Amino acid sequence: MHRDYASNKLLSTIKQSNSLYSSPLKLPLFRYYYRNQLNYYKPFKRTDNVRFYVNVSLKWYLYYLAHSTALNMPKKNAFYAQSGGVTAVINASACGVIQAAKVEPKIAKVFAGHNGIIGALNEELIDTSKETACTINQLLHTPSGAFGSCRYKLKSLADNRAEYERMIDVFQAHNIGYFFYNGGGDSQDTTYKLSEYCKQVGYPLQCIGIPKTIDNDLPFTDNCPGFGSVAKYVAISTKEAALDVASMSASSTKIFILEVMGRNAGWIAASAGLAAEQEGDAPHMILFPEITFNREKFLTQVNRTVKKYGYCVIVASEGTQDQSGQYLSGSSTKDAFGHLQLGGVAPNLAEMIKRKFGYKYHWAMADYLQRSARHIASKTDVDQAYALGEAAVALAVDGKTGVMPTIVRGKGKKYSWSIGEASLSTVANVEKKLPRDFISRDGWHITDRAREYLSPLIRGEDYPPYKRGLPVYARLKKVMTTKKLGKYRQD
Amino acid sequence: MHRDYASNKLLSTIKQSNSLYSSPLKLPLFRYYYRNQLNYYKPFKRTDNVRFYVNVSLKWYLYYLAHSTALNMPKKNAFYAQSGGVTAVINASACGVIQAAKVEPKIAKVFAGHNGIIGALNEELIDTSKETACTINQLLHTPSGAFGSCRYKLKSLADNRAEYERMIDVFQAHNIGYFFYNGGGDSQDTTYKLSEYCKQVGYPLQCIGIPKTIDNDLPFTDNCPGFGSVAKYVAISTKEAALDVASMSASSTKIFILEVMGRNAGWIAASAGLAAEQEGDAPHMILFPEITFNREKFLTQVNRTVKKYGYCVIVASEGTQDQSGQYLSGSSTKDAFGHLQLGGVAPNLAEMIKRKFGYKYHWAMADYLQRSARHIASKTDVDQAYALGEAAVALAVDGKTGVMPTIVRGKGKKYSWSIGEASLSTVANVEKKLPRDFISRDGWHITDRAREYLSPLIRGEDYPPYKRGLPVYARLKKVMTTKKLGKYRQD
Repeated sequence: MHRDYASNKLLSTIKQSNSLYSSPLKLPLFRYYYRNQLNYYKPFKRTDNVRFYVNVSLKWYLYYLAHSTALNMPKKNAFYAQSGGVTAVINASACGVIQAAKVEPKIAKVFAGHNGIIGALNEELIDTSKETACTINQLLHTPSGAFGSCRYKLKSLADNRAEYERMIDVFQAHNIGYFFYNGGGDSQDTTYKLSEYCKQVGYPLQCIGIPKTIDNDLPFTDNCPGFGSVAKYVAISTKEAALDVASMSASSTKIFILEVMGRNAGWIAASAGLAAEQEGDAPHMILFPEITFNREKFLTQVNRTVKKYGYCVIVASEGTQDQSGQYLSGSSTKDAFGHLQLGGVAPNLAEMIKRKFGYKYHWAMADYLQRSARHIASKTDVDQAYALGEAAVALAVDGKTGVMPTIVRGKGKKYSWSIGEASLSTVANVEKKLPRDFISRDGWHITDRAREYLSPLIRGEDYPPYKRGLPVYARLKKVMTTKKLGKYRQD
Repeated sequence: MHRDYASNKLLSTIKQSNSLYSSPLKLPLFRYYYRNQLNYYKPFKRTDNVRFYVNVSLKWYLYYLAHSTALNMPKKNAFYAQSGGVTAVINASACGVIQAAKVEPKIAKVFAGHNGIIGALNEELIDTSKETACTINQLLHTPSGAFGSCRYKLKSLADNRAEYERMIDVFQAHNIGYFFYNGGGDSQDTTYKLSEYCKQVGYPLQCIGIPKTIDNDLPFTDNCPGFGSVAKYVAISTKEAALDVASMSASSTKIFILEVMGRNAGWIAASAGLAAEQEGDAPHMILFPEITFNREKFLTQVNRTVKKYGYCVIVASEGTQDQSGQYLSGSSTKDAFGHLQLGGVAPNLAEMIKRKFGYKYHWAMADYLQRSARHIASKTDVDQAYALGEAAVALAVDGKTGVMPTIVRGKGKKYSWSIGEASLSTVANVEKKLPRDFISRDGWHITDRAREYLSPLIRGEDYPPYKRGLPVYARLKKVMTTKKLGKYRQD
């Protein structure tokens, strides 16, 4: 433990010493530190002797330097919450926030909202400092929302001022000065509203959004954490299931349909296109929400494909709509945000084909499996999710509010990325659809431009550890901090 | 290449020299050889210097020994075919057959049936010797039936003698003396019928069945290759999706249903039970085909679970039936073997729950994804599939016919397995159901006995290689051998 302690102390002092804090050394040191912390449980594995001694010397020199200029800073707690549909890597962002905050001299504790923002309203705050460092590390490879998420959207200030007041009461009672909200478009909207409200009432709260959505539909960020892993899962599943149909097609199944998520934007459906690496490869057809479904054209194309290749693999977005704007799923249940709950495009299409041509079919509905499949997450996605959590903390302590860290794609042929920043006033409630030039002219496939964009996002494997054949995922103790206020009564 | 050649030559000569062939050295040498061949593309990686020199010396000594007693044997070709629903590891068995046959002095070439047994009838024989060694190696990690499978069952001799005669004509024309049929119960039945016919008409053909079925319902073998990988996929998917529901349940989805395969036996559904490692873990309920579905009891249990844990995860077998023997899926399409084509239990159950309690639900239908998911195959399963392919060749050259190699579980607490042998006269068309003591008394879960049986089968990960974020699977050239007979006309 002493290494860990010394190392934390070091980083605190690096940051406290102002001359160093704003120096060009800051970023590499910051990065270096976290890399090391991540490797803490496999010490010296990636370090050769020379590097090790240089690092140790550098550390102690900085430790000495920082000690001699150390300042006493007032500390505030931070609040972190997960929102909306969860992903395979949202906990990686949580891990980034918690580990960055731990060594941040301005931040005392990180409280996580139990079941998202509802936890803030109900004063159910999980004290993350009660979890072991090992458990926090495990968040990096644990899918779904470890602290609980929710589908709950704050109303506008005019409609429900009480909610905002309650939240500030809770934050004040627990000395919370930093607010991190990890979600999609609706959550960024909430973060923005809260930051505006805090400015109005003069409560000092740095409100930072952390992007997350498998739908990949947030603007201003090159891509959204969570998407890359779904994309990888969908591309691999399409490739594997297609091999299955191919081997059965001579005497049995000729049609396979995989239904994937993506309410209004076809990013996930598009990612299935990566499975097609050579002429004739599946998927042979992709149904995007951006392209109006035409029954006759669809059936003609299916039959043409079966005649040519002996079978036809179709990937259909749950948001596929016909000319009249009706979802092919036929469902009409709505969720808390007022969005339609979809599902059932695949069996409908399969029956349509069967009735017309009599082809034997199979279909799969990946549903939650696709967004929780941490076992085959994209390494790029995991790295970015973690970095965004880290960056959110850096933005907050820099005094920013109403902003969101973003992924910026590097120029140049080889894929690279860095962290940028966007104002939430412009991000909130804007949906980024699949550009038309990502879809082939006939509307059944993706273009090379789409490939170029999508391919780097699924690169790299980041396998979780296994025990008895199953992945080992974090189990949190979820120790709640003591309540200081009365029960919250919703109107 | 010279290493490969020398090494093949070595094994041939080891086997040709009769004194060695039947000696107790045979099996370890045989094993040693294949281990080495598998490691051919990463030479010396696992070998330290001392072991390397001992091995090389031993090899050359045996080479010399064998050369001095070598015999000239008449060679025959082998026929290999894949049958029925494919799996993530059936190609591993193909790899075992081809690599074992390659070094077998009695076998010349391996012809694979194009689309299974139909390839034998149509004289469409894929010459596996035209594939590169690298492609054959890749079969080890390629899912589905690389040579094409089929759903086609030979009729009884009385009903269609012409089919048997045609097959023997084709085998005779191509000098085929070994028949390997890789499939489930129906295919083992075909293999048995063929072996009996050959005895009748006096055609010398060694007919060997190689077990394969995700349903795990073949008798006399401890488990069936293909099942372990589906079991692993289903257990992991259940675990991951359950984390998703758990994090959404406070304000949104409370019910998640995963529908899995397993027509009449609940082995696959049972394997989902492995995901529950602690009290309260999902799945909370499993629906087995062996347990009659009772609507009232089901709904009561669902509600009890939601009240207790806040959510309920259900894994339902496609073969779930009610008191009157009706499938809950409600489908009535039949496949070529006369089996019902199932699907749709999950949405039916979800609607049932929604109507009664109003809980928001999600459901997934894994379908082909579960049996083609080579990306997360069980290492135990891959190893066994390969070993069974190898063993089939050994049985054939030993002069056996109408038999099938099996997996025999070792006694003792630590899991171990070896290869056994069963007669097909007793295997054919017997279905092994889930024993009642594998299912908990209340019928909703698995027992510790089931865990003990299932757990070792999903152990170990055997990741395929990746390129640009996608697994690299074998692409065969499928060069057909020249036809020597006229076209086959089916009556």
